[in-house]
Amino acid sequence: MENGYAYVSNGFPDEESGTAPLLRLRRSASNTTSQIAIIGSNPCPIESLDYEIIENDVFKQDWRSRSKFQIFQFLCSKWILCFVIGIVVSLIGFFNNLAIENIAGEKFVITSNMMLANRYLTAFLIFAAANLGLTLFACLITTLIAPEAAGSGIPEVKAYLNGVDAPAIFSFRTLLVKIVGSIAAVSSSLNVGKAGPMVHTGACIAALTCQGGLKKYGLTWRWLRFFNNDRERRDLVTCGSAAGIAAAFRAPVGGVLFAFEEMASWWRSALLWRAFFTTATVAILLRGLTDTCLSGKCGLFGTGGLIMFDVTSVDITYHLEDVPPVLLLGVIGGIAGSLYNFLLGKVLRFYNLINEKGTAYKILLACTVSILTSCLLFGLPWFASCRPCPADTSEPCPTIGRSGNYKKFQCQPGHYNDLASLFFNTNDDAIKNLFSKDTDTEFDRTSVLIFFITCFFLSIVSYGIVAPVGLFIPVIVTGASYGRLVGLLIGSTSNLNHGLFAVLGAASLLGASMRMTVSLCVILLELTNNLLLLPLVMLVLLVSKTVADAFNHNIYDLIMTLKGLPYLETHAEPYMRQLTVSDAVSGPLHVFNGIELVGNIVHALRKTGHNGFPVIDEPPILYGLILRSHLISLLKKKAFHRTPTLTDVNVIKQFSSSDFAKQGFGNAEKIEDIGLTEEEMEMYVDLHPFTNASPYTVVETMSLAKALTLFRGIGLRHLLVVPKTSGRLPVVGILTRHDFMPEHILGLHPMLAGSKWKRLRFRFSLWDRFFS
Amino acid sequence: MENGYAYVSNGFPDEESGTAPLLRLRRSASNTTSQIAIIGSNPCPIESLDYEIIENDVFKQDWRSRSKFQIFQFLCSKWILCFVIGIVVSLIGFFNNLAIENIAGEKFVITSNMMLANRYLTAFLIFAAANLGLTLFACLITTLIAPEAAGSGIPEVKAYLNGVDAPAIFSFRTLLVKIVGSIAAVSSSLNVGKAGPMVHTGACIAALTCQGGLKKYGLTWRWLRFFNNDRERRDLVTCGSAAGIAAAFRAPVGGVLFAFEEMASWWRSALLWRAFFTTATVAILLRGLTDTCLSGKCGLFGTGGLIMFDVTSVDITYHLEDVPPVLLLGVIGGIAGSLYNFLLGKVLRFYNLINEKGTAYKILLACTVSILTSCLLFGLPWFASCRPCPADTSEPCPTIGRSGNYKKFQCQPGHYNDLASLFFNTNDDAIKNLFSKDTDTEFDRTSVLIFFITCFFLSIVSYGIVAPVGLFIPVIVTGASYGRLVGLLIGSTSNLNHGLFAVLGAASLLGASMRMTVSLCVILLELTNNLLLLPLVMLVLLVSKTVADAFNHNIYDLIMTLKGLPYLETHAEPYMRQLTVSDAVSGPLHVFNGIELVGNIVHALRKTGHNGFPVIDEPPILYGLILRSHLISLLKKKAFHRTPTLTDVNVIKQFSSSDFAKQGFGNAEKIEDIGLTEEEMEMYVDLHPFTNASPYTVVETMSLAKALTLFRGIGLRHLLVVPKTSGRLPVVGILTRHDFMPEHILGLHPMLAGSKWKRLRFRFSLWDRFFS
Repeated sequence: MENGYAYVSNGFPDEESGTAPLLRLRRSASNTTSQIAIIGSNPCPIESLDYEIIENDVFKQDWRSRSKFQIFQFLCSKWILCFVIGIVVSLIGFFNNLAIENIAGEKFVITSNMMLANRYLTAFLIFAAANLGLTLFACLITTLIAPEAAGSGIPEVKAYLNGVDAPAIFSFRTLLVKIVGSIAAVSSSLNVGKAGPMVHTGACIAALTCQGGLKKYGLTWRWLRFFNNDRERRDLVTCGSAAGIAAAFRAPVGGVLFAFEEMASWWRSALLWRAFFTTATVAILLRGLTDTCLSGKCGLFGTGGLIMFDVTSVDITYHLEDVPPVLLLGVIGGIAGSLYNFLLGKVLRFYNLINEKGTAYKILLACTVSILTSCLLFGLPWFASCRPCPADTSEPCPTIGRSGNYKKFQCQPGHYNDLASLFFNTNDDAIKNLFSKDTDTEFDRTSVLIFFITCFFLSIVSYGIVAPVGLFIPVIVTGASYGRLVGLLIGSTSNLNHGLFAVLGAASLLGASMRMTVSLCVILLELTNNLLLLPLVMLVLLVSKTVADAFNHNIYDLIMTLKGLPYLETHAEPYMRQLTVSDAVSGPLHVFNGIELVGNIVHALRKTGHNGFPVIDEPPILYGLILRSHLISLLKKKAFHRTPTLTDVNVIKQFSSSDFAKQGFGNAEKIEDIGLTEEEMEMYVDLHPFTNASPYTVVETMSLAKALTLFRGIGLRHLLVVPKTSGRLPVVGILTRHDFMPEHILGLHPMLAGSKWKRLRFRFSLWDRFFS
Repeated sequence: MENGYAYVSNGFPDEESGTAPLLRLRRSASNTTSQIAIIGSNPCPIESLDYEIIENDVFKQDWRSRSKFQIFQFLCSKWILCFVIGIVVSLIGFFNNLAIENIAGEKFVITSNMMLANRYLTAFLIFAAANLGLTLFACLITTLIAPEAAGSGIPEVKAYLNGVDAPAIFSFRTLLVKIVGSIAAVSSSLNVGKAGPMVHTGACIAALTCQGGLKKYGLTWRWLRFFNNDRERRDLVTCGSAAGIAAAFRAPVGGVLFAFEEMASWWRSALLWRAFFTTATVAILLRGLTDTCLSGKCGLFGTGGLIMFDVTSVDITYHLEDVPPVLLLGVIGGIAGSLYNFLLGKVLRFYNLINEKGTAYKILLACTVSILTSCLLFGLPWFASCRPCPADTSEPCPTIGRSGNYKKFQCQPGHYNDLASLFFNTNDDAIKNLFSKDTDTEFDRTSVLIFFITCFFLSIVSYGIVAPVGLFIPVIVTGASYGRLVGLLIGSTSNLNHGLFAVLGAASLLGASMRMTVSLCVILLELTNNLLLLPLVMLVLLVSKTVADAFNHNIYDLIMTLKGLPYLETHAEPYMRQLTVSDAVSGPLHVFNGIELVGNIVHALRKTGHNGFPVIDEPPILYGLILRSHLISLLKKKAFHRTPTLTDVNVIKQFSSSDFAKQGFGNAEKIEDIGLTEEEMEMYVDLHPFTNASPYTVVETMSLAKALTLFRGIGLRHLLVVPKTSGRLPVVGILTRHDFMPEHILGLHPMLAGSKWKRLRFRFSLWDRFFS
């Protein structure tokens, strides 16, 4: 454990204790509710999600009363919601690109015109001021309105799909800030991406849609009540994140695969189909919208914006002798990618210390990064020598205006500045330039090297600012320049053209940083629109991921750890086979009787932060598990008895399942909000009809690894542990998400940390010594 | 229930009771082992697979004793096995295509030469005789050597991955017959495919590889012992089936997606990566092998064989007005596809009656189909009129030799027979002709209509013969002709060329018959090598699948039902929420004591066919569950005591986990093989160290739907049901796969069959009346 911090489970183990050891959080002994710090925001409590089918009398009655029409309506509305999500996401994606291309384009046009008039200082000042203003705007709205919108959002959505409900990540506020902030941040020439924010936007839209709109303004539909549970929401959020990638890269199949490979923790074929339907809607609508722009009605949008690199429409041929350089590119890319992750982690940790100090510090940091970026982007091209325009090029040289391979910058007519063609452009255009074919002589080795190094470090220092910024595009542009560099160094010994090397370089860095395989492969193919690349891209991805896996985790896992999101892996750590579940449960247990005194319930709810309580009947047998939220709803309804009696069946009929349905995100009621008289506190309440009578249980001698399989496989929030022998209390404890966290287990059993059961991972002492 | 047959669970419920109600099987009251009829083979018992982590003392001890080196070795060998599978599958795939192209090619060359010499009758006789001979050979080796190799094999592999171990489907014998038989069957011009058999071949190779080769000949490696469990085998078989599709269609990404979407019942991201590695190996090696053939060293193989249709390297443009015809194509394709499934089901049922009668009938059926096919293929082109060769074609017309768009057949020089260009060709070449661009005037409407109808019915009557034949290619060729027909009928009102319509037609029929989405989409894109098609292909697939889903199930589910393979769906039927698990368990329970008399065990094993027995300790508490196979291993070891005593720890050390490891496929030992003396029968054996002490349990009041989530989610073979109240036997019953089968449940509770809880599916009375 770092910094001497160890998980101490005080009292009843609870899922809310999934705390972030790195952030040194306050914990009080009387409350197990823990806090996480969303980077750049105030600490908030996190909740777990429950994908278990809760079987109590009220829900059962509701299910039985559903008519065939209602079931049909439910099935239809699933598809309608997916369709709506697809349409909204594609509209936002289109609008996003339109805005970025026009804002950034206008900025470059003005600056270029100044430079044509030889007013270089004015050009720089305008450039830097525009960038600073945009960055400041993005940072301000994020800090003041929705701190949850900071960063790419992919780690939060991934954690949500794993069962961790970070607060307010799917609020309308967050959505708005995410969209506007992302446009401003990307337009400000920061080395940040828009793909990650698009994924979060898609997920947000899905979550808001299934909630039936804005609850605050009463805009909800009654027929959406069937979606008031975590399972349905999870499914829609998965579809939404697939739609996000589809809109960002115009890659519908890649979007589905991304959602499956990287985002989703649970998945089934039926969901694949729905996600595919959503991304198909996005792809078709986006194509239609882009077509309407072909006539030039969209300002500077042109045909681009939505990246679609036509790397090579000619046939690509490659042979066995091209494999060794590609392998080498993969290996070095793998090392570079893991180094990237490592450095990014360190920088984020450092930034976190700054951002914690207050709003002013956050803004100062963002401004510093923006000014640094402006200086580098405007300054570095001056070091590159002007190159004469090639005679046989198909496009005008130098390119006056915004896009194109040849930027004039400070050069005399008939010459171009190759470094400015990369730096003085949007990232999308820089990638297009790097991916373009038949341009092997266009760039100088030194220029590409400078560009690569600058991008590598700029993207690392840019990600941590408090604004909605992504990682995908910066990694692609860095990787593409790396690939070009390899191509230039290998020279004519290879048959492959340098545009192809750039694609492979992008693949290697993406693979090494994000550790996806199939989805990245498909996204790259859909981007470059050339299937003949497939075997080489596959090879590079496999090699770079394998190499990088030997060093550290993927970038999103790293950020999740930093944010303290308790992500539950599918795979059990080897030492979990050595422990039984009773080794992991700890603390005294709080149970209720089947018919319980109201005062006892209120006391327990106030005193503890637990979300589930076992219900015991006489003679000691386990009746079931009751959730905190259901107890609170029950207390609100005040169906109390003066004597300990069972509730009448007719009384149950007064309750509808919607009383117990999960409220929207972050709207859970609190025990403190319920006022009860002294008299009511002395009354009894029958918990039976509201108790989940068939919770999943495991025997105390089961290994933790096996229990994890169940917990993770079904998506549980609480797992009851029952005793092996008879004559004891019929429940030994409750396992929650936090009990399966390696930090918790290694905290309880420190001797395991150094044992042979730790995960196999290479540790190079030199690497550790220099960089740790 | 059909035919008055109802599932009667006699005694203990057991997973081996997953019988096929349609095949009217014999069941004796004393034995619950059931039989399934692999179509065209002798009935064999089926087994379930167990993906649960079995935790008994012996396995635990083995796990603890593993060194870090052994864990590393295990991890490495996983990847090495995937690599080996990839290489072997690609070699077989290449060899397969080489053989088919050469055999079929030679046949067509000889026949064509005869026809050039105007010896039409001889040509027909040679053609028919060659076809008959090849069909006969395929049918004979299948019937006599490996009846399990009949059909495509995809349903069996899919069932295996769901946890159903049909006997001998992964034997070396089956593999050989599958490869050789598939070559013969496809070469014989039957309207059958080679993709399905390739999937089975891939799965077979994976299963044999992880078994460490041929057990019979002692070719096993000790370090493969870690793969001796169902989980590891399942993972490798999944990778193998992905490799199969990758080799059949040169579609590595499509292969992975196919394995995920259609085949696998359990899946996780790590497996995705391994499957991707396997298919990448296949793709790269296959490309290398095909390149070596470019110089013409492979006989008639040429560049083709492995289908790679270059439908359009030109830009495809389409607009909003092209959507309605495409939608129409999707809807009609959906109806045609569901009709296809329906008819195929009927024909298979009918063929089953014939095939059951004996080997002679099987062969007779195959020969009839072959002769019918030969007559149609040779006869129908005579009805087409000869068309003059187009002036502006790039290839020679008429094509003399094997491949090409213009077949001379009976026409005079300078003319070609368009129907012969489709019929008198391998299926691969017919598809290539249909998919080719700029050939809108090449085919006559009537010709394409005749071809479509013939293919539709020929593929239905061909699939049921006892030979290794697949469905993929016939559906593609039928769909492609359907698409061409739509293109011809719509004519010039659409911007789309007819080759494109053919691709969309193939997509619609595939989607409607196999009901896959993402994987089919990617396979088609990888086949046609054109990503611009993507939105249209997605649209067609979505529409046709939706339409077809309203009528019936996908083709593989249909075949699995016919074969009586108890496939467990993820999705619980609505009525399962109305039933508790105690409604599904039935019959008296057979339990053992912790220390049990040998005679009792032998008696129970002989008397019942059960595969799992609860072990009870005094005072009545549930100790765990012991498997039949472990009991048999234990009896073989004869670690008995004269008095009821606990086994010493040192005695346990004499047992190694390999004694209890699952033997290879179909090599399980039987209780009858173990000889025990009268004296030994009177001795005691301590079951504790060999009992799985932490089986998964559910409480008897849990709904069946919720229990299914657990059973299916974890991949269990046995699920123990424990009582809600105390003072009873600590186990109420055992749920196995068969208890979750709708046939079983509806048999126990017939009133549910007509209730509103039945699955929502349109029922058109006309459809039922005419076709049922």
